[in-house]
Amino acid sequence: MKIKVAGVGLTKFGEIWDKSLLDLALEASKEAISDSRLALSQIDAVFVGNMLIGKIAGQDHLGPVIASSLGLSCASFRIEGACASGGLAVHLAIQGILAGTYKNILVVGAEKMSDAPITQITWALMGAGSSKERKAGLTFPALYALMAEAHMQKYGTTRKQLANIAVKNHYHASLNKMAQYPFEITVEQVLESSLISSPITLLDCSPITDGAAAVVLSADDSKKGVYITGSAVASDTIDLAERESLTELKATQIASKTALKQAGVEIKDIKIAEVHDCFTIAEILAMEDLGFCSPGAGGKFIASNATRLGGKCPVNTSGGLKACGHPVGATGVKQIIEITQQLRETAGQRQVKNANIGLTQNVGGTGATVVVHVLQN
Amino acid sequence: MKIKVAGVGLTKFGEIWDKSLLDLALEASKEAISDSRLALSQIDAVFVGNMLIGKIAGQDHLGPVIASSLGLSCASFRIEGACASGGLAVHLAIQGILAGTYKNILVVGAEKMSDAPITQITWALMGAGSSKERKAGLTFPALYALMAEAHMQKYGTTRKQLANIAVKNHYHASLNKMAQYPFEITVEQVLESSLISSPITLLDCSPITDGAAAVVLSADDSKKGVYITGSAVASDTIDLAERESLTELKATQIASKTALKQAGVEIKDIKIAEVHDCFTIAEILAMEDLGFCSPGAGGKFIASNATRLGGKCPVNTSGGLKACGHPVGATGVKQIIEITQQLRETAGQRQVKNANIGLTQNVGGTGATVVVHVLQN
Repeated sequence: MKIKVAGVGLTKFGEIWDKSLLDLALEASKEAISDSRLALSQIDAVFVGNMLIGKIAGQDHLGPVIASSLGLSCASFRIEGACASGGLAVHLAIQGILAGTYKNILVVGAEKMSDAPITQITWALMGAGSSKERKAGLTFPALYALMAEAHMQKYGTTRKQLANIAVKNHYHASLNKMAQYPFEITVEQVLESSLISSPITLLDCSPITDGAAAVVLSADDSKKGVYITGSAVASDTIDLAERESLTELKATQIASKTALKQAGVEIKDIKIAEVHDCFTIAEILAMEDLGFCSPGAGGKFIASNATRLGGKCPVNTSGGLKACGHPVGATGVKQIIEITQQLRETAGQRQVKNANIGLTQNVGGTGATVVVHVLQN
Repeated sequence: MKIKVAGVGLTKFGEIWDKSLLDLALEASKEAISDSRLALSQIDAVFVGNMLIGKIAGQDHLGPVIASSLGLSCASFRIEGACASGGLAVHLAIQGILAGTYKNILVVGAEKMSDAPITQITWALMGAGSSKERKAGLTFPALYALMAEAHMQKYGTTRKQLANIAVKNHYHASLNKMAQYPFEITVEQVLESSLISSPITLLDCSPITDGAAAVVLSADDSKKGVYITGSAVASDTIDLAERESLTELKATQIASKTALKQAGVEIKDIKIAEVHDCFTIAEILAMEDLGFCSPGAGGKFIASNATRLGGKCPVNTSGGLKACGHPVGATGVKQIIEITQQLRETAGQRQVKNANIGLTQNVGGTGATVVVHVLQN
């Protein structure tokens, strides 16, 4: 598989009160098309990743809303898979190109979360999880708290190790002007922030974010550039209670194995990664499930600074979901953009040297959907 | 393109109070897998077409909900494009197979509409349309009423011609035990039913329906069977007000041209079709935009009985959206099933003789999305 990332476009992430979801989606889309140097008329499909807009603002049917606003009458689609919507949209766009049906596809992930009251957002987000567990009062922080608690009990992972992840990702975000929180925090600040669901505190959690991210994917493999060489999706039970283990996401294991095989590389070849740190514990699970370290060793591995800028495989150089922000439907596309910018060596202050192979991991819910991509130049 | 329709499964359409969306989706899915004679483990992806469940019941993320309930950990996706969600899911599943990524895909369209109060359903459905037009008070019956009015003024189409479409589709449904309304009605009943939005009366409208439809699509082209040989999608503006004409759906014209070209056939070769008669006027527009008759001639063409069982090209032998029912996310998949059953010659009392090439047209909103498929055996 060799699908070119021909163009990228990203809005500022944050609480963006003066722009609508459509404004954000069009801003990112136009930038990505311009960056691709393709004419608008060469875009032959639009894939939209979005989770919440129907429930928050009533408006579904975003495919033609965005396509026609750009002046396009081509095929358009909205893909939804909770917080993995963006990654799924990228995966399906790749299928359309590999099929030979489409040549140049605009994939845009967009979310406008700050317009809705927090109770409505919580209700809307819980659509990603199990109805049963929701009725039992389990919100996502509580579900990930159960996983964190299990990991701490089973492997001796510490609160400080969790906090360290937020600190690292805020440091990375401090070098990223598009990030929602471009500033550093300390371990003490994480530990002392409000308890949300034990052991998770406020600063272990990714925020509510507005933003959009767009890429143009292309069949063109004739020129130098960044290519997606692996793309895979796996599913798991929507109920956490039905899983054999709380300390792993099997869908990450399955999807990454397939994506790495497609790309013809091994996890040790990966020089940079963007993973789904919706809560700090999720980054530990990602490291272990992807095989960057052994099961249970994630906390220590990250604490060793191996995944901090300057380490052997920097993870979440964008600032991750934690500090760059998490506009849910946009996240999977933003991950592709961060790796593309790193491979293009246009990541500025957060540039990783000699990065030639990168990976993204995008999670829906508590791992009921996982999408993994491998990128190379 | 040659994608086998390896299996089909359909629930009864109607107000189904004793089953949940998941119950319906699993019932249709299991039947389709059984009909395909594939082992469950051979299904390597699940594509779900659904529009409303997040807004009605909170539950999004249907891909893994359905996949894991079947015992699958393969890739899963939810596709949303308003009432074209089912057709879009079929189209994208085809891309996954053509890409060589997936071999056997379960596509399931499902909707559970009767659980919600009518005001909530109206709000949820309006997500398919323009925010601006919604704020002006235009619901879908009103938007299609504008199109009907324009067609009547421009071409002299009559109320009786519109009513005749509902009568035909109820006649077809009277031969279909899965239909929501398996009984005949008269032109007088249509004309005398409650006025919804002039000139549209209650019996010009498709109903609120619960139901699910599933197909297994397969890369297998070695055996006798029914194949999808054309699949195309086009978009148009979400605002009716921004279009050049109210009496045509350009997206139907674009998508059908592409799909017929892929299949290597012309519209005159089509022996049977299922089209998106969400309101009676929509079937007239479909006939004209697909090229079954010239622009403006749709009312007369249908009144000639050319599209009634026994005519030269029966249309909506299932009963259509009008009388078989319209569980929005399921409709596009159900259309594929009806044509498959006709081509397999398993359509019972409503069997069309010597049908070898069929077409489906699935519309989202007022034509902002249109999906067209061509099937052959």
